[in-house]
Amino acid sequence: MNNFVFQNPTKLIVGKGTIASLATEISKDKKIMVTFGGGSVKSNGVYDQVKAALAGHNVIEFWGIESNPTYQTLSKAIKIGKEEGIDFLLAVGGGSVVDGTKLISAAIPYRGDAWELVLDNTLVGETTPLASVITLPATGSEMNCGAVISNTDTHEKYPFYSSYPQFSILDPETTYSLPAFQISCGIVDTYIHTMEQYLTFPSQALVMDRWAEGLLLSLIELAPKIQCDQHNYDTMSNYMLTATLALNGFIGMGVPQDWATHYIGHELTALKGLTHGLTLAIIYPAMLRVLKEAKREKLLQYATRVWKITEGTEDQRIERAIATTEAFFRMVGLPTKLREVEVDASTIEEIVTRFEQRGTVLGEHATVTPAVVREILTKAL
Amino acid sequence: MNNFVFQNPTKLIVGKGTIASLATEISKDKKIMVTFGGGSVKSNGVYDQVKAALAGHNVIEFWGIESNPTYQTLSKAIKIGKEEGIDFLLAVGGGSVVDGTKLISAAIPYRGDAWELVLDNTLVGETTPLASVITLPATGSEMNCGAVISNTDTHEKYPFYSSYPQFSILDPETTYSLPAFQISCGIVDTYIHTMEQYLTFPSQALVMDRWAEGLLLSLIELAPKIQCDQHNYDTMSNYMLTATLALNGFIGMGVPQDWATHYIGHELTALKGLTHGLTLAIIYPAMLRVLKEAKREKLLQYATRVWKITEGTEDQRIERAIATTEAFFRMVGLPTKLREVEVDASTIEEIVTRFEQRGTVLGEHATVTPAVVREILTKAL
Repeated sequence: MNNFVFQNPTKLIVGKGTIASLATEISKDKKIMVTFGGGSVKSNGVYDQVKAALAGHNVIEFWGIESNPTYQTLSKAIKIGKEEGIDFLLAVGGGSVVDGTKLISAAIPYRGDAWELVLDNTLVGETTPLASVITLPATGSEMNCGAVISNTDTHEKYPFYSSYPQFSILDPETTYSLPAFQISCGIVDTYIHTMEQYLTFPSQALVMDRWAEGLLLSLIELAPKIQCDQHNYDTMSNYMLTATLALNGFIGMGVPQDWATHYIGHELTALKGLTHGLTLAIIYPAMLRVLKEAKREKLLQYATRVWKITEGTEDQRIERAIATTEAFFRMVGLPTKLREVEVDASTIEEIVTRFEQRGTVLGEHATVTPAVVREILTKAL
Repeated sequence: MNNFVFQNPTKLIVGKGTIASLATEISKDKKIMVTFGGGSVKSNGVYDQVKAALAGHNVIEFWGIESNPTYQTLSKAIKIGKEEGIDFLLAVGGGSVVDGTKLISAAIPYRGDAWELVLDNTLVGETTPLASVITLPATGSEMNCGAVISNTDTHEKYPFYSSYPQFSILDPETTYSLPAFQISCGIVDTYIHTMEQYLTFPSQALVMDRWAEGLLLSLIELAPKIQCDQHNYDTMSNYMLTATLALNGFIGMGVPQDWATHYIGHELTALKGLTHGLTLAIIYPAMLRVLKEAKREKLLQYATRVWKITEGTEDQRIERAIATTEAFFRMVGLPTKLREVEVDASTIEEIVTRFEQRGTVLGEHATVTPAVVREILTKAL
């Protein structure tokens, strides 16, 4: 097991009716900016619950943080935050709203321009406290310090690290009205978050492996139940908790990590506007096929423990595990080939060129060079 | 899934050589009391490492916190802590040292007598910050806010809840020299911590079940390896992490919990001085046999997923799962009957009388009355 340091201070408040606890979780002497995405929280009742809980608090609202939150939109919120002396941020919505609010949190006390913080995380100093009411299980942003920020001028999309939310409220009933496509992308996002921390090489962190497998087995059990009945409380509460636990550091202790698929996916989103979970569903099976020798032992463990594949040669078991993974993504409702989303070889070359220019090398063994990225994306065509 | 609130702020610092990080983890302006148990840390090198790391810090030492730490011993440390103006506590040793230091932490700023805090946890207010260097994987005290405190005058032993350690250092190499009996008790303690949060009734917290099973499967895999080679770094680091994760709240989110075995075990320790893990090994199989109807569904799940018992009638599978659990405790090296530790029916009656006087009713269904406790202990004879 590798040496590691772990700490996650976020307070999780989980269950039906918990949005009301905002009334006491945030001190009344704070000047709060509540950040939102589009209007879905108005139609599903979340906005009314937040407003009722914060009656008597000093609140301004900022609307319009988009999927793949942009520096351009967030800069407007940062300007207002500085002008209004905001000293508490509450993100209400999906992972993009929470991600975007992390940049607002870091940029309000920062004197320079927010994009500088994205390009150089070491510039993040003091942050404005933030919390979240999460309504879309997927990114895990509600219980980690990470975010992904886009720039529409430069078509760039980069990870960004800042503060953990002080608290996050997860009311499973807020997920009942989510569109099926967002659920599909959230399930795959959660699955790949787990795989990025698990499907590398044997590292003798037994519990971490078991816990990652536990998340995968839970997702496989939950996915068809969610498709049958998105209003089942037990199903949706389990799904919501699984999404949080897949990327809050609990399964990443002392283990090697991959994340190549995420980095490649961010480029597809930045260049072609594809939803994050969708990019992962397309890249991941191709990545496993290209890197199956380097990931051989863990793929065999995955085949046995997660998909119960115990017959055939090693190569047959590995290929079946990859094919079953891809079939799972399709069953969940996502395409798994670039041609299905109208991306062709020219985009592949654009991505490879970007990685070459940045000198990017990815993967747990640092062997995923731009040439390997080309191989992966070509296999995904 | 039940509504729940989860927060665990402890910073875990894990790996070989990490004791040196004390130098920077504790500010030099603190007046530190370092608390120890007996002298084993002097023979295994831990004391020297702590002393080297804290050179230049303002440190006093307190020695002699015993297994099942007592109010009587801790009162001496509390008196010194008040007199010396101690504002940081560092526990170095096993779970008992950490447990005891939690009472010192709560009692230094408290005006009354420390035993009042044990009898009424609501009296705990401000606490003196504490941290730990844990050397015996078992209690999980290094990453939770719980402790168990004994009183030698009254032969009582009660749970006590206060602050989480600010940080805890886990260097697996510190476990190489642990006596076999302490390892055995630690393995069983970790196993039962997991079972208390798992083996209740189906509660639709899928991931929590998977994670509890993951801890149990890891322990079952690790136990014989530990017995073969207590100096294997991978084995001991895995065991150490497993012990921490079994009682830091990670597997307790939104699920019903039992803890009857612990409460009964504390009485056996208080009256007969038996080591904690040993009391659990004796009580737990008897408890499962007495309560197997109430725990039926979860016992069947446990049989299948943990011990891979899939043949026979339901009753046969349940009995085999219980017998296998008991055999595991014996394989680990502990007795599983009261007669083996020279406890007879008179002690059982004493325990039952105590529970009757206190009006104690235990278990996840609050059905373990004093009469049921008698039945459990009688079956354990």
